[in-house]
Amino acid sequence: MSATLPDLESTVSEIADEMRARSDRGAVAHYIPELARVDAKHFGIAVIAADGTVACGGDSDMPFSIQSVSKVFTLTLALGRYGDRLWRRVGREPSGSPFNSIVQLEREQGIPRNPFINAGAIAVTDMILSGHQPREALGEILSFMRFLADDTDVIIDEAVAASEQRTGFRNAALANYMKSFGVLDNPVELTLGVYFHQCAIAMSCKQLAMAGRFLAQSGCHPKTGLQVIQPERARRINAVMLTCGHYDGSGEFAYRVGLPGKSGVGGGILAIAPGKASIAVWSPGLDAAGNSHLGRVALEALSKRMNWSIFGA
Amino acid sequence: MSATLPDLESTVSEIADEMRARSDRGAVAHYIPELARVDAKHFGIAVIAADGTVACGGDSDMPFSIQSVSKVFTLTLALGRYGDRLWRRVGREPSGSPFNSIVQLEREQGIPRNPFINAGAIAVTDMILSGHQPREALGEILSFMRFLADDTDVIIDEAVAASEQRTGFRNAALANYMKSFGVLDNPVELTLGVYFHQCAIAMSCKQLAMAGRFLAQSGCHPKTGLQVIQPERARRINAVMLTCGHYDGSGEFAYRVGLPGKSGVGGGILAIAPGKASIAVWSPGLDAAGNSHLGRVALEALSKRMNWSIFGA
Amino acid sequence: MSATLPDLESTVSEIADEMRARSDRGAVAHYIPELARVDAKHFGIAVIAADGTVACGGDSDMPFSIQSVSKVFTLTLALGRYGDRLWRRVGREPSGSPFNSIVQLEREQGIPRNPFINAGAIAVTDMILSGHQPREALGEILSFMRFLADDTDVIIDEAVAASEQRTGFRNAALANYMKSFGVLDNPVELTLGVYFHQCAIAMSCKQLAMAGRFLAQSGCHPKTGLQVIQPERARRINAVMLTCGHYDGSGEFAYRVGLPGKSGVGGGILAIAPGKASIAVWSPGLDAAGNSHLGRVALEALSKRMNWSIFGA
Amino acid sequence: MSATLPDLESTVSEIADEMRARSDRGAVAHYIPELARVDAKHFGIAVIAADGTVACGGDSDMPFSIQSVSKVFTLTLALGRYGDRLWRRVGREPSGSPFNSIVQLEREQGIPRNPFINAGAIAVTDMILSGHQPREALGEILSFMRFLADDTDVIIDEAVAASEQRTGFRNAALANYMKSFGVLDNPVELTLGVYFHQCAIAMSCKQLAMAGRFLAQSGCHPKTGLQVIQPERARRINAVMLTCGHYDGSGEFAYRVGLPGKSGVGGGILAIAPGKASIAVWSPGLDAAGNSHLGRVALEALSKRMNWSIFGA
Repeated sequence: MSATLPDLESTVSEIADEMRARSDRGAVAHYIPELARVDAKHFGIAVIAADGTVACGGDSDMPFSIQSVSKVFTLTLALGRYGDRLWRRVGREPSGSPFNSIVQLEREQGIPRNPFINAGAIAVTDMILSGHQPREALGEILSFMRFLADDTDVIIDEAVAASEQRTGFRNAALANYMKSFGVLDNPVELTLGVYFHQCAIAMSCKQLAMAGRFLAQSGCHPKTGLQVIQPERARRINAVMLTCGHYDGSGEFAYRVGLPGKSGVGGGILAIAPGKASIAVWSPGLDAAGNSHLGRVALEALSKRMNWSIFGA
Repeated sequence: MSATLPDLESTVSEIADEMRARSDRGAVAHYIPELARVDAKHFGIAVIAADGTVACGGDSDMPFSIQSVSKVFTLTLALGRYGDRLWRRVGREPSGSPFNSIVQLEREQGIPRNPFINAGAIAVTDMILSGHQPREALGEILSFMRFLADDTDVIIDEAVAASEQRTGFRNAALANYMKSFGVLDNPVELTLGVYFHQCAIAMSCKQLAMAGRFLAQSGCHPKTGLQVIQPERARRINAVMLTCGHYDGSGEFAYRVGLPGKSGVGGGILAIAPGKASIAVWSPGLDAAGNSHLGRVALEALSKRMNWSIFGA
Repeated sequence: MSATLPDLESTVSEIADEMRARSDRGAVAHYIPELARVDAKHFGIAVIAADGTVACGGDSDMPFSIQSVSKVFTLTLALGRYGDRLWRRVGREPSGSPFNSIVQLEREQGIPRNPFINAGAIAVTDMILSGHQPREALGEILSFMRFLADDTDVIIDEAVAASEQRTGFRNAALANYMKSFGVLDNPVELTLGVYFHQCAIAMSCKQLAMAGRFLAQSGCHPKTGLQVIQPERARRINAVMLTCGHYDGSGEFAYRVGLPGKSGVGGGILAIAPGKASIAVWSPGLDAAGNSHLGRVALEALSKRMNWSIFGA
Repeated sequence: MSATLPDLESTVSEIADEMRARSDRGAVAHYIPELARVDAKHFGIAVIAADGTVACGGDSDMPFSIQSVSKVFTLTLALGRYGDRLWRRVGREPSGSPFNSIVQLEREQGIPRNPFINAGAIAVTDMILSGHQPREALGEILSFMRFLADDTDVIIDEAVAASEQRTGFRNAALANYMKSFGVLDNPVELTLGVYFHQCAIAMSCKQLAMAGRFLAQSGCHPKTGLQVIQPERARRINAVMLTCGHYDGSGEFAYRVGLPGKSGVGGGILAIAPGKASIAVWSPGLDAAGNSHLGRVALEALSKRMNWSIFGA
């Protein structure tokens, strides 16, 4: 344990090389037509260490659809606005089910198990929307991402949003189902509109890792020194990421990587080494649980080599 | 974050006092008749820091039935013997269900979701039993506990074992169900016999915290310097404790306490602050998810005051 | 068995009197606001015997919302158009679940268990809609009802349809869910529009019993002599009514009444005594499974006194 | 409808010939080792008409393991002893699940959905056992079968009973599960012992059809004129057979055959044409739902040619 840790930049660079050479890449998500067109060959990684060091590799500047990684940031926004009242609308237990399961909702009166499965994220977005026009709510989410990433170039990919809006029947089912239990306040189509657009935010690994820094630093935004969220809440968001951030592969991710993380169906993963680093990886091919295959492999390697697991000494 | 941490011994002592004063204690488990007779007023806590400091409070020397906390140790034993082949018989994902649910087994061909729900622990015990007589297997488990705790006084409470054997129909259902899928190798009644006895091991908080030290110290047994289990495996056991150690309250425990932990229906919890401490608490009253109510409250206070959460800087 | 059967008209009249006197009436459905305004005191019954005798009692001429009873007629229409190909989209097994459950759909790839739960009926309506405008499809359904009932006064209650359209989130969830599996061909909102309107058809017991005659007479429309559907298909529709016509109370209805029947949340039930009679009852108060309480009680009495159970000699 | 019906004996003989020629026979149950040895080529049929006519075909005198068909007779016995109190321990709704599912038990507090799934039949057997020694209870069941069949040659196949006792882990799971909810009164192993033996009763089609006569004749035993069970109860047993007698293939059986029936995993089916005939068929190959494939096909042909469906005029 006391052995000298390897150099971060060369480690990240090695991992990027190793990932480029691998042929096991999983399958690109096909259920959102626009995403299915992305080349499975891409791999990017960006690490922002607590001291500000930036280590990148592969396609770390290429924007991709962050999809469900956006749920971390909308949860942060909604916790900021509603505090613990948020937990009346959504639980914080692992679901033991796939990301888009509706079974649990029937058993539990329309209350989603956690904010990182689709149903839970839709409920959180509905809370952000309340009292606003969809355009305003989206603007707030986008501004928040740009602020966190220190980058005004973060945009919404309208083609992806439109693609999902045309084909997102399963999410429409989840939203209508929750609406039938009174868990959503706004018209279903408005809430879904904001949700599909938030998922269509496009960011590079570097932008995403920048945006995640506050979670590695007790809720503090390094550049401005602003407290994005209270330290305790930052810890708790990390805890929910650890137990629920990879759907029905959350246990596996905790077991192998040992870091809080949130994946998206676009192939991105944001992972947090508390006190040490904010990390983003991207590889579009997914495993059976819907999480980036090489993204997880790369994070496992990084966590091991840097000795960053939260479960070890 | 950089503030000076409070003194461990006085913190533990304060928490013990606070717990003694509380009236919200949950309900003592009634489904094992022998356990139902325990006084809900008890509270004990013991912390063994990495430097060997022992801090105790309340009924920290009074033995209680460790019940499911034993699953951490049988998992360790079985991983040592079978390595990763163990995972062919049991998964490592949170179940999203109560500790004794059988629904998941039907959906997943008799393979339990993780080694910390009852079905999974029975499958692990079955692996330990294979090739042995029940008496030998039990002897091995008990010797292991005594070695880890540095204490030859750890015993099995035969009255509790007998009580559970008479009334453990739900566990018999789980075992027979797995047997029907070929997941158990040994006769159901033998496997259950070992399982009921392992759950009936009686230990004090101090003994239990001693036994857990290797998980806080990269798998190393401090007194003897023996590597109980490889460092990576110790981390991974911690990861499974974090995601699955409190049944359908695992997310809540991670969110509030921020430490890997394993609870038992006898009211005990073993929690690990990696690199920092092994902690055992005991309070017999349980919450709705079957975990010690005051035990969790005490651990939340300890983790916060000592700044031990694995999710913070 | 050989005892002389009582006179139909006096039996029906007696039953109407008995029902009027009862105070156990169940609860009027509240989830469709417009239906919640109906007075629970109503009770109507109409029996059309095979020889053309009409026996009525209570509010037998008062129109009510037939709701799910409409599913019998859309199934008949769709079977006529698609034949056994219909069964590729919907099963014919009892669901073991409430009328609006979505759990089964997740387990069975979006294929509803039978055409009499909501999901199944929506799938059938979607088939009727295919190749048509919603207005045409509705017109076809309405014309069919008027033809079967020999009565041009059968109408759609637009207020009920609008009420359901505003609040039918659960049905929207079911439809979107099936759409995500490709089980529906038409845009969800169009299919739901037709479905909500078909459910809002208003008929009196007398009209409904008239409309059901073909099921008691081997598929033949008595007045015109037209074969509405082949004899074998009429039998099979009766079989599906028996096993699936009362949601998760189908077993109870078969056990107590012993006749094929289909209930609606408006409090109506159509029951068929094959070869003997078509029967409609109406009482708005529902039991726990969502079926008319007094309607079932009245049918049990009628079936017993007339010795009409299909399960006896 | 008014066409002259075909001659029963020649119809039965034709059907036996047709079945002999078919090659689609399903798969012989393999999970009870002793049953797996039966030749899939067998086919037998026996029909006892209300006037006493006996029409047989194929292997109608060869004994086979009646397995779950026994549940009809234990239900009759238990209803005779306990009356409607029986329904406190077991429901009468279709389960929407396979014969050996345990999921429903968890959702419904250990109360089986109906007396014809395994769990429900075990609960009924437990009621018959209460107050008796297993040997006595079995003796009562066997005597009842012999009386109903007018044949003292009905025996229990001890090899089959022993085979099931060695391998019946799934039934042991169901029984222990119910026991954990207090639904069984007797020790699990005793109840299971009686259950496995009752399932191992060996009868020929002819014996089985003889035993079923009372259900076709309003509860009356033709030879002795004794009322085996009240007419209403006979009707109700038929109703439960119709809705629940073929597990998750009950809807299909009702749809195709249109008669109450109960299948067994040994390949036997008892079907009842109320007022007309008691029918037994046997063909060991099963369909996906665990019901005799050719047995169902033969009954469909018989019901159609004799116009015996209870759903037609």
